[in-house]
Amino acid sequence: MNEIIEIAKTAKKASVKIARLTTDEKNKILLNMAERLDSSRDRILNANLIDVRNARDKGVKESMIDRLSLDDIKIDLMIESVRQLAELKDYVGEIIGEKRLDNSLEIIEKRIGFGVIGVIYESRPNVTVDVCAICLKSSSVAILKGGSDAINSNRVLVAIMQDACCVENAFNLIDTTDRDAVNKMIQLRDYIDLIIPRGGYGLINFVRDNSKVSVIETGTGNCHTYVDCDADCDKAIKIIINAKTQRTGVCNALEKVIVHKDVADRLLERLSDELVVKGVEIRGCERTKEIIDCKDACEDDWAKEYLDLIVAIKIVNSPDDAIEHINRYGTKHSEAIISDNCKNIERFIDEVDAAAVYSNASTRFTDGYEFGLGAEIGISTQKMHARGPMGLKAMTTTKYVIRGNGQVRE
Amino acid sequence: MNEIIEIAKTAKKASVKIARLTTDEKNKILLNMAERLDSSRDRILNANLIDVRNARDKGVKESMIDRLSLDDIKIDLMIESVRQLAELKDYVGEIIGEKRLDNSLEIIEKRIGFGVIGVIYESRPNVTVDVCAICLKSSSVAILKGGSDAINSNRVLVAIMQDACCVENAFNLIDTTDRDAVNKMIQLRDYIDLIIPRGGYGLINFVRDNSKVSVIETGTGNCHTYVDCDADCDKAIKIIINAKTQRTGVCNALEKVIVHKDVADRLLERLSDELVVKGVEIRGCERTKEIIDCKDACEDDWAKEYLDLIVAIKIVNSPDDAIEHINRYGTKHSEAIISDNCKNIERFIDEVDAAAVYSNASTRFTDGYEFGLGAEIGISTQKMHARGPMGLKAMTTTKYVIRGNGQVRE
Repeated sequence: MNEIIEIAKTAKKASVKIARLTTDEKNKILLNMAERLDSSRDRILNANLIDVRNARDKGVKESMIDRLSLDDIKIDLMIESVRQLAELKDYVGEIIGEKRLDNSLEIIEKRIGFGVIGVIYESRPNVTVDVCAICLKSSSVAILKGGSDAINSNRVLVAIMQDACCVENAFNLIDTTDRDAVNKMIQLRDYIDLIIPRGGYGLINFVRDNSKVSVIETGTGNCHTYVDCDADCDKAIKIIINAKTQRTGVCNALEKVIVHKDVADRLLERLSDELVVKGVEIRGCERTKEIIDCKDACEDDWAKEYLDLIVAIKIVNSPDDAIEHINRYGTKHSEAIISDNCKNIERFIDEVDAAAVYSNASTRFTDGYEFGLGAEIGISTQKMHARGPMGLKAMTTTKYVIRGNGQVRE
Repeated sequence: MNEIIEIAKTAKKASVKIARLTTDEKNKILLNMAERLDSSRDRILNANLIDVRNARDKGVKESMIDRLSLDDIKIDLMIESVRQLAELKDYVGEIIGEKRLDNSLEIIEKRIGFGVIGVIYESRPNVTVDVCAICLKSSSVAILKGGSDAINSNRVLVAIMQDACCVENAFNLIDTTDRDAVNKMIQLRDYIDLIIPRGGYGLINFVRDNSKVSVIETGTGNCHTYVDCDADCDKAIKIIINAKTQRTGVCNALEKVIVHKDVADRLLERLSDELVVKGVEIRGCERTKEIIDCKDACEDDWAKEYLDLIVAIKIVNSPDDAIEHINRYGTKHSEAIISDNCKNIERFIDEVDAAAVYSNASTRFTDGYEFGLGAEIGISTQKMHARGPMGLKAMTTTKYVIRGNGQVRE
């Protein structure tokens, strides 16, 4: 415990210094980070090679190895991401409200950094760089608890980020094999202002249910696409294939197809053929199985985020039934309707409870870059504070500053 | 448990209907509420009389009886508060971001209601009216868990609010003697979108540490006023007396005075005399006791919110020591510096971690009305989502709506 408390205390002290940096100073540090990443490619790739080799030795599955592995192209993307952050608007210091009372008291509401942000994540080393860069630009100190598989990569990356920064302890890696580290970290509300868990359902639930620090839940995506009775089937198939297969291990990938009964006969055979060509395993409800040949979808399937080449299909009687199913089993991430019926589209958009609700497009667009926010620190699936991709603005809080000359309340 | 789950399920269903109300419809309901409150004064006062009588019989202390008691003036204020909400801007539906991608995908970010908001509070019946009216105007359904002392008043008030509203189950009172009701309520994340505890430190900590629903902490206020070396003592005394004694049972009342050593001799005797005249008990640190006659302040005092005619005084060596003490023991509510030194003021404002930071004014101004937000649902002391007084804007969340015509991600 002591080690993690000490890191958090040190981080809290550093947060005062980070808060004093000007926008120019922060942008210079970001450009310095980008340069150092560029000139440290060998060091990064060598460390990453050790992680990849260890993971292979441990029998980690190939989709995870893919997320863990770095190459020059991935490093280029990291560098580009950091450079873009230097170009983006700095929200810290922005005045978002002003009022002068009759007694001449001046009240302003301004954006400030959170202080210390703890991010708990899994194996992708590019997250390490994004977290450091976003926290810096939004005037917070970062405490990073990455996956143990990426420990060598993360050590090198955090060291490079820290070397580029004039404030000591701006980026703090929890470099421990202590399995209880996450649980210890989320108790430290005196030193950590915000915790963001990025990862699987189990991690996120554990952190949310046990944290004494404020939490923003991110990234679990049991995403649905509902094909309405008035849908264009060509469009539906193109969108579903894209949302399901363009990348499978990401939170905005499609997991469930909900089909209106009146379109099922026209849609399902063709859709099934195309899914099978792409190697997707289909699990269907009873009614789906009457139309196409597929495995059984059981109750567990409806709530599950596969993150794999698997899809479950359910036939419903009405848009309302689709909305009800999605609100029951969805994770409030990204949900879509395919329809040419305006009334059904608007009802779906209004009544489906999710961060991003689509009509006639692939859910794969839910992403900080696509939404114009730049690098994101995660995709919030909660309603409080921030919803959907979280960029620099979401990483600020506010403070009221009230200046007087002796005013008292009557 | 079943009863509370049933209330929450019913509330969730009602939230879909509340979300469909237009601004005009909501404002008409608010005016209808105000009228019905006005025409139901006898009914309200009779019910309140029972609560007050029961509380007296139980030996509840007079300051609590004062918070519980209603009279015509307090009912006037309730009515005025509801009418004002009808005049205030409706944030629901506001478009706060728009973007068109190169592929013609249209992304908008808009404000929406939370859905179902649970408010757990203590004995003040005016909170019941404010919660119903604020939730309605911000397009959410309310679940209210008030203090058992106010149960008769709350039953009547919620019935009046509900009668004024065309949507059934818009306002739901948890009318139970089940002592575990709060604990049951905070587990229901499938039906409740946000929990706001208003009350003492114990309640707020319990809810924050045990809730599976998102929580906004409110209202614990261990508020400090720091008198700097360069302070005008007349101003300091006037502000301290106001912040400590104008009302003592409120969260923005002063609890601690921190005094720079160089001003202690000039300030403390006069301050002490004026506090004693107002009936305030003084507890001092060792150095304070060398200057004035007062009780001992022990370690516990520094963290305590007295909500009473008690103040603790501590002498420090520097503004930095004052900031450190406040950041250690404060509850991030309202903190003030009294100084004519700009550098010290700016440092205090920047480095004290609180929702509202004042220079040369009484902390008593931290309040939704004073800050121009209208009725407030509480004063947030956390950094996430909303900070300080929470009005209608804080009671909204957002949703991304993305409209396409077949777009897929490349």
